[in-house]
Amino acid sequence: VGRALARLLADRQDLLRNRYGLSPKLRAIFRSTGGLMVRSPATVEGLILGEALPARKAALWDPKIMLPAALKLDRPGVFVDCTPGNIRTGQPGLDQMRLALGRGWHVVTANKGPLVVGYRELRRAAAGRGLGLRFSAAAGAALPALDVGLRSLAGTRITAIEGILNGTTNYILTRLGQGATFGGALKEAQDKGIAEPDPTLDLEGWDTAVKLLLIANAVMGLELKLEDIDVEPMSGVSPRALAFARKNGRALKFLGRIGPGRGGVTADVRVRAVASSHPLFGVDGTNKGVTFVTDTMGSVTVTGGRSDPRGAAAALLKDIIDIYRN
Amino acid sequence: VGRALARLLADRQDLLRNRYGLSPKLRAIFRSTGGLMVRSPATVEGLILGEALPARKAALWDPKIMLPAALKLDRPGVFVDCTPGNIRTGQPGLDQMRLALGRGWHVVTANKGPLVVGYRELRRAAAGRGLGLRFSAAAGAALPALDVGLRSLAGTRITAIEGILNGTTNYILTRLGQGATFGGALKEAQDKGIAEPDPTLDLEGWDTAVKLLLIANAVMGLELKLEDIDVEPMSGVSPRALAFARKNGRALKFLGRIGPGRGGVTADVRVRAVASSHPLFGVDGTNKGVTFVTDTMGSVTVTGGRSDPRGAAAALLKDIIDIYRN
Repeated sequence: VGRALARLLADRQDLLRNRYGLSPKLRAIFRSTGGLMVRSPATVEGLILGEALPARKAALWDPKIMLPAALKLDRPGVFVDCTPGNIRTGQPGLDQMRLALGRGWHVVTANKGPLVVGYRELRRAAAGRGLGLRFSAAAGAALPALDVGLRSLAGTRITAIEGILNGTTNYILTRLGQGATFGGALKEAQDKGIAEPDPTLDLEGWDTAVKLLLIANAVMGLELKLEDIDVEPMSGVSPRALAFARKNGRALKFLGRIGPGRGGVTADVRVRAVASSHPLFGVDGTNKGVTFVTDTMGSVTVTGGRSDPRGAAAALLKDIIDIYRN
Repeated sequence: VGRALARLLADRQDLLRNRYGLSPKLRAIFRSTGGLMVRSPATVEGLILGEALPARKAALWDPKIMLPAALKLDRPGVFVDCTPGNIRTGQPGLDQMRLALGRGWHVVTANKGPLVVGYRELRRAAAGRGLGLRFSAAAGAALPALDVGLRSLAGTRITAIEGILNGTTNYILTRLGQGATFGGALKEAQDKGIAEPDPTLDLEGWDTAVKLLLIANAVMGLELKLEDIDVEPMSGVSPRALAFARKNGRALKFLGRIGPGRGGVTADVRVRAVASSHPLFGVDGTNKGVTFVTDTMGSVTVTGGRSDPRGAAAALLKDIIDIYRN
């Protein structure tokens, strides 16, 4: 995702300048093995082409270049986090985001862990300093779930959210509906690069639960924790449920839902059979979608959005543009 | 729509203050027969309840209170236009918007006419003074077409737009698909208050064409005029087309489309048979929906949104919030 973003920034200089008056420059890049201070477009080119030129790439990375030093650069900008984060501890991204916000940097992130653990704290830190904290890329990426929930539905009361938030499991369910076996559909998804080699987090529903939590906490102003969401693994779907759904013109969807419940709200993730009138009925394959139910605007659904590194990078870029537009 | 907005502003004072730090106040209200300077919440109450209390209402309206004077009020705020506008001349809204922007007022509007005729001029006038010009309520209302196109897809290149943008015609097509006759479905829509007594603009496709134009000009940066859109009335749909669609598992939709064409872009409005894999296939009844095709984010679709005066008022309120949030 980081490489896709670097490429996008290089490709879109003209569009960004003409349309938004922006000329973003990469200043430094980090990965687990070191950092790289970017001094020229040629360096960026080197980084982007790096994969094909290992010798040149290796020479560019310096293990002594660290994030804290880079954040002291003359003028703060945007800290973009594309690292994978632990959803129990939020680390290492959580500390990095604290550091960046503390030093006056905006934060744009594709990293879910720090937000699951520390969203409220990070949001306060950002708001207190007038900084942006944007995480479209962590909550649906090119599917604009947060934009719709936070901006398009501003002024409404959102009473429920329902979403197909994971491409791997939706792909498998779509294939099951077409007659494939679970094992066959999973292998197919792995062969196509849709499912990870270890798809546990997807199949057990945690990826869906995490995205539901991020979206609900942001747009409904809740303070949900992962343990507040009742998660039933997708692998529990029975051939009988499948046959029943098909016979009744319904489709099985692995839905994350939050809505009114005992003592406030109830949130769960499970396979449900939805009727053809349901707004997410037609969301097939690796597509995602989310429905918001409101008091004054009725129900609004957004679907689609490319679900690959380029789509995630485009979501990061969108968040960067939005910070500077405001 | 104006009355629904006044009611919403009165109802939502707490929510607006707590969530957005806003305390909007109605200052003056106009209609064709005069104006009303709002001095207290009781006046607003009087206005809102007005319909049920004609004597009281009549006493409140003063034919000598005019817009130009009101716009000289001490501090500029937001001018909200809910009047119907002529799509050929843009008047009277166009002159009112020019006046409001010229005096430093933001403009939020549900009025299509002025935007069809003078969008580029109004946009420049607003941008030159750092003012907001928002028209969600004129381009889909509670369906967040502009938000998604302008914000969620920022940084992408939008190559095509396709939309079901008119509730009346979509309702009629849905009912035709269920076996109703054209005359029967139209009468039903009129009886339910969905279709206007004179539904010509809807049936002939002009309402769809206007919304397509507003959305495309804003999000694709075009300068389309109404005559650039090839419009084929919905009433031309044949029983044969209907039978063919049904036999092939397709649905007839009255689509506004803009995409690559000879010498740039082609735009049209006509009934098309869409397959079940089409993202707007399931958009039935009075629902609306729009799909954007982009280079980096794939295809993103938004559907739904209440299509009544309250939904339109909620869209106006959303735009007001957004102006002050930025």
